[in-house]
Amino acid sequence: MIQGIEFAGIASGIKAQGLDLGLVIFKEDMHVLSLYTRNKVKAAHILYDRKIDGNPVRALLVNSGCANACTGKEGVTDLHAIGQELSSMLGIEKEKVLFASTGVIGRRLPAATIIRALPALLKNLKKNRPEVFAQSIMTTDTFPKIIHETFSGKKNYSIVGVAKGAGMINPLFATMLSFVFTDYPIAPGSIKRVFSSAGRETFERITVDGECSTNDTVMLFTKGGDEDLSGLPAFKEKLLSVMRELSLMIVKDGEGATRVIHVTVTGVRKKEFAEKIARRIAISPLTKTAFFGCDPNWGRIIAAVGDADVPVQPSKVEIILQGEVLVKEGVEVPFDEQTMKKRMDKKEVELVVDLHDGKASYDIYTTDLTYDYIKINASYRS
Amino acid sequence: MIQGIEFAGIASGIKAQGLDLGLVIFKEDMHVLSLYTRNKVKAAHILYDRKIDGNPVRALLVNSGCANACTGKEGVTDLHAIGQELSSMLGIEKEKVLFASTGVIGRRLPAATIIRALPALLKNLKKNRPEVFAQSIMTTDTFPKIIHETFSGKKNYSIVGVAKGAGMINPLFATMLSFVFTDYPIAPGSIKRVFSSAGRETFERITVDGECSTNDTVMLFTKGGDEDLSGLPAFKEKLLSVMRELSLMIVKDGEGATRVIHVTVTGVRKKEFAEKIARRIAISPLTKTAFFGCDPNWGRIIAAVGDADVPVQPSKVEIILQGEVLVKEGVEVPFDEQTMKKRMDKKEVELVVDLHDGKASYDIYTTDLTYDYIKINASYRS
Repeated sequence: MIQGIEFAGIASGIKAQGLDLGLVIFKEDMHVLSLYTRNKVKAAHILYDRKIDGNPVRALLVNSGCANACTGKEGVTDLHAIGQELSSMLGIEKEKVLFASTGVIGRRLPAATIIRALPALLKNLKKNRPEVFAQSIMTTDTFPKIIHETFSGKKNYSIVGVAKGAGMINPLFATMLSFVFTDYPIAPGSIKRVFSSAGRETFERITVDGECSTNDTVMLFTKGGDEDLSGLPAFKEKLLSVMRELSLMIVKDGEGATRVIHVTVTGVRKKEFAEKIARRIAISPLTKTAFFGCDPNWGRIIAAVGDADVPVQPSKVEIILQGEVLVKEGVEVPFDEQTMKKRMDKKEVELVVDLHDGKASYDIYTTDLTYDYIKINASYRS
Repeated sequence: MIQGIEFAGIASGIKAQGLDLGLVIFKEDMHVLSLYTRNKVKAAHILYDRKIDGNPVRALLVNSGCANACTGKEGVTDLHAIGQELSSMLGIEKEKVLFASTGVIGRRLPAATIIRALPALLKNLKKNRPEVFAQSIMTTDTFPKIIHETFSGKKNYSIVGVAKGAGMINPLFATMLSFVFTDYPIAPGSIKRVFSSAGRETFERITVDGECSTNDTVMLFTKGGDEDLSGLPAFKEKLLSVMRELSLMIVKDGEGATRVIHVTVTGVRKKEFAEKIARRIAISPLTKTAFFGCDPNWGRIIAAVGDADVPVQPSKVEIILQGEVLVKEGVEVPFDEQTMKKRMDKKEVELVVDLHDGKASYDIYTTDLTYDYIKINASYRS
């Protein structure tokens, strides 16, 4: 799909079984822009990568099975050691290698294991085949997450996005790892704001469990060389759409989720208030379990609205679920419970809360809370 | 136990089955102090009671099975109608009757059903028997919650606390309904601050699911007449202990909970920061599911610490679980996982997070997150 990018993924032995080490190689120097977790406790790859942010890059090494977080100075030292080996094998400068990790917090990266696996990983490199790379970065994901779009400037370009979810997905910065690659030549300075804004509109608008990982990372790789500004409007549009699709894939694959709920809060005095209410609903365990049970229990929704720490006039609140008005002026509009249960039993559910108190709005995607979330997380390490 | 107080509880038909209507009658005028939910959406009983707060009271009528929240003006009108009937049957002023409700949000209180049940309820009144009253206010509670203590001033006094939990228990104000009665004569003005402070130290330090009900209410009823200030120190102590015991009963009976986790955050620069971190840990679904699975997954705990939106130096963090140091200076201290699993498999688990960055601390009680929480809440209404 994209010229000059190769992908690989192998089972290196970090995990007991399965693919766990992925590599992306760029034939030419690429620009990179990154968004990192707002968690105060940051993984080693973030501490490491941030120091070389702005450099041209030639390689990205990603592992699953070990977050390399809370590993002290040794966690960063391990990356230096691996970077040294990989860069010399590739004949590039060490500062052109970036890292990302996902998995269990607190364990050292098995650097020797990874270094031993590098020759096999390099042999595995294939053009235009992000599938195996996408698989190698999965943890509790149930499917690999890849999007491919094309657009035109002076010539035709591709944009490819790869991501992994699926738990510890938090509001305010909601992915574990996501990488977007394009052969479109554009300098970071020309798209920094566009990229940040796309992050806010996509990865920051999904939540699975309200948790914030130590490792959350979104990276955008663009081609170096002369910029093709004629392609910029098309690129912006495709970038947003790729990031939106990736973020929706993550929420759809949320741990244990059986459905995605699209929460829209509208008619609010300030956007900031609308966002607070939408996020409060989206992380409410009672609301999320009601969605699991297809229970049109709007009382839990309005309780979450009232608990969002923003001004609310209960007597104006309207709640619309799957197009059906359940609440008008703060009180119930009679509805048939069995019919509503059936209408809620869908993969995607639309919830609109209208405060009838202004013109601002905000929307966010969340999941239901299920037995399987408990199952997955009560014994993730063992 | 307490002279001049009678309790009753019956099955009035609000619920399909079980006790659902409770009454407390005071032979003499009592003072009352109340703490209500901070939810912007407040139940009708709160809107009603607040208007007569400060009045002397003679009766308290509490129902389960219907929250009488989001019921508009009619919700308050219903209370006026019931209050009219009950007060005339008792031969007291209507303004001396208080209400409290718990149950499903959005449904009108069946006022006619309740009024029809009042004669049976009055016949059921018994001195010194809060058990049936405590049962009548239960929803998903698995046991009634009653505490009785005695203390002395010029004479001997009693203090009795009754509460119901068990879900929608929120930080910052964490009970659904709780009532404390005493025959100790003290005016509200003398204990208002003591009562609020006791609320902060007890009901505000528990959480089950981070949810905030529309109905949360704590009421303290004290005897009128000449104050006995000689008993004040003993009363303060017993009030705090009764409220603490009730709040611990609520968290122990948290929906689906198999254990209580006592989270202490210490070594923090400001108490406000310690509280934020403790609350962030206490509502973290990943941490709570790990406790359910007896998984010493401290990575989730430190991720919650880093996500609390307060300054944290990861390299100073110490985590102590059941007395065992798992993390020192931000990195793992090797421990035997199977031994730790066994040590975590207790009804009560002690977690201490020390930031080694100051002298402030805060503690809070929370529960694990289990299959049964999902089971109870995926179909609460049906």
